[in-house]
Amino acid sequence: MDLAIMGTGTVGSSVAELAADYGHRVTGMANVASAAIDPTGIDVKAALDRQNIEGEAALGDADPDAVLDADYDALVEVTPVTLGDAQPGFGHVRAALERDRHVVLANKGPMAERFADVRDLERASEGEVRFEATVAGAIPVLSTIEDYSPATIQAARGVLNGTANFILSRMAAEGLGYDHVLAEAQDLGVAETDPAFDVEGTDAALKCVILANVLAECERTYTLDDATVEGIKSVPGSALDLASEDGRTIRLIGEVVDGEVRVGPRLVPEHSELAVTGTTNIVQLDTDNAGRLNLSGRGAGGPETASAILADVERLPN
Amino acid sequence: MDLAIMGTGTVGSSVAELAADYGHRVTGMANVASAAIDPTGIDVKAALDRQNIEGEAALGDADPDAVLDADYDALVEVTPVTLGDAQPGFGHVRAALERDRHVVLANKGPMAERFADVRDLERASEGEVRFEATVAGAIPVLSTIEDYSPATIQAARGVLNGTANFILSRMAAEGLGYDHVLAEAQDLGVAETDPAFDVEGTDAALKCVILANVLAECERTYTLDDATVEGIKSVPGSALDLASEDGRTIRLIGEVVDGEVRVGPRLVPEHSELAVTGTTNIVQLDTDNAGRLNLSGRGAGGPETASAILADVERLPN
Repeated sequence: MDLAIMGTGTVGSSVAELAADYGHRVTGMANVASAAIDPTGIDVKAALDRQNIEGEAALGDADPDAVLDADYDALVEVTPVTLGDAQPGFGHVRAALERDRHVVLANKGPMAERFADVRDLERASEGEVRFEATVAGAIPVLSTIEDYSPATIQAARGVLNGTANFILSRMAAEGLGYDHVLAEAQDLGVAETDPAFDVEGTDAALKCVILANVLAECERTYTLDDATVEGIKSVPGSALDLASEDGRTIRLIGEVVDGEVRVGPRLVPEHSELAVTGTTNIVQLDTDNAGRLNLSGRGAGGPETASAILADVERLPN
Repeated sequence: MDLAIMGTGTVGSSVAELAADYGHRVTGMANVASAAIDPTGIDVKAALDRQNIEGEAALGDADPDAVLDADYDALVEVTPVTLGDAQPGFGHVRAALERDRHVVLANKGPMAERFADVRDLERASEGEVRFEATVAGAIPVLSTIEDYSPATIQAARGVLNGTANFILSRMAAEGLGYDHVLAEAQDLGVAETDPAFDVEGTDAALKCVILANVLAECERTYTLDDATVEGIKSVPGSALDLASEDGRTIRLIGEVVDGEVRVGPRLVPEHSELAVTGTTNIVQLDTDNAGRLNLSGRGAGGPETASAILADVERLPN
């Protein structure tokens, strides 16, 4: 397939770099400043080198929005997440579907905040929308739900944010305080300079909202406002010590059950599947016919998220 | 879709009972003695009641092989596994593909012992072959490998037989001997009257052979003869005690790595993901781009395996 990639940050760059290994061509790539377009296939390495050495405006000669009019089979939407109207990501999704092209997203904004609008556009289009990469990175959660049928899945829960999990599991393992471990996480590149999105639970909540939308199918639609969200900033080291004396620990758990979407710190048994360590993510699906499925692995990262995007491309009809 | 089900044991019965929930009709059902056929849809409950109360010959009025000529979109092959020529299961697969119909298998025989033959028939047919249910029941292993591309997966390993795992994990937890725990497993219906297939590692080995065939794609084909297999009968309770003093335990692990297929008892860290308990199965996939994925859940059972079959039906082109 020919891929047009909106967003050439960590994940978008990885998709571009790996595309050829999966038999695809990159015919368009855009950041906020410029774009490269070539219907015969872009020299991805050269374009990314220009961007990384000379700056965003050097990616290519075209305007970013020109990629939307280029020749491609699937648009890969990997611009930074935005809330509310989910723009400009939503506009990119609309542009592709209105041209009967497929869309594969890692950007959580459109599927969390405007799920119904995207599904409406998809129904009116020959193109399909896939978004495995929006929930738990490389872990095949949404395709599993799709294959087993959302109607047979009663609940989903898990550890969906690697930054928050790293911090809590390090606090528990080392008996260190939050500020100390956050600084360590930032040094390692596991936490952002402004970590609010992760430590306040917003990132995990967006993923749960997307899960809720998928599980509810057409019955109702959720947005971030529907989620009850508590982050990890108020978990003191003493709470972890107390938990440990009782054979438990604390993790930031997201849950979709009984029509509710909740994210918050929870006590879990020390050796529970949910007590993952470091930046590992896990999703548990409680199913009607097959009991509980546990899916764990890396929830974030350039190549990791790119592999989820390329798995979605594999599942598009061609 | 219209489904024809060859084999009305635990799994086949579950598929027949659940088919309507997934929007499908059962137009043919066969055991070794008789068959029911109805192009407008069989009354599944009535047919299974007849079979279960009056005996196999009462399932229906037709000959079993007549189902192969009936009207259906996908043949569900759930007759008992056979080795070597994998008959009669292989013949059922051939009959469906020669009529350009799809095939969904839970029977491991054809895909373990005659993988190349099945792929040759599939290439010459409009029908597709899917076999998620042959490896780790409800756990979506093969669809994950398919989506992430077999070429990107360097190794697969796991606990693939619930009977053997139940026995070892109970021996470890309770300090009981093999014969005692085997008797308990038989009482619970977790082990067969003749448990050889499970405790000798053959069942796990067939699943690993199938994984090896999928991962190798067209490079080479494996059969059970290619696997190095050791079961659990020679694991003494003292080995488990010794392991425990070192923070380890023993599980029957199947592995596909570096072109080799091996099954045998292995030491694993006590709290490793591989140290699952009871009848739980787990598969770990080591991937190029996404690190290690862990997929665990129920590896066997009527509804569990049926849900994997129905997930495969969902993925067929229609």
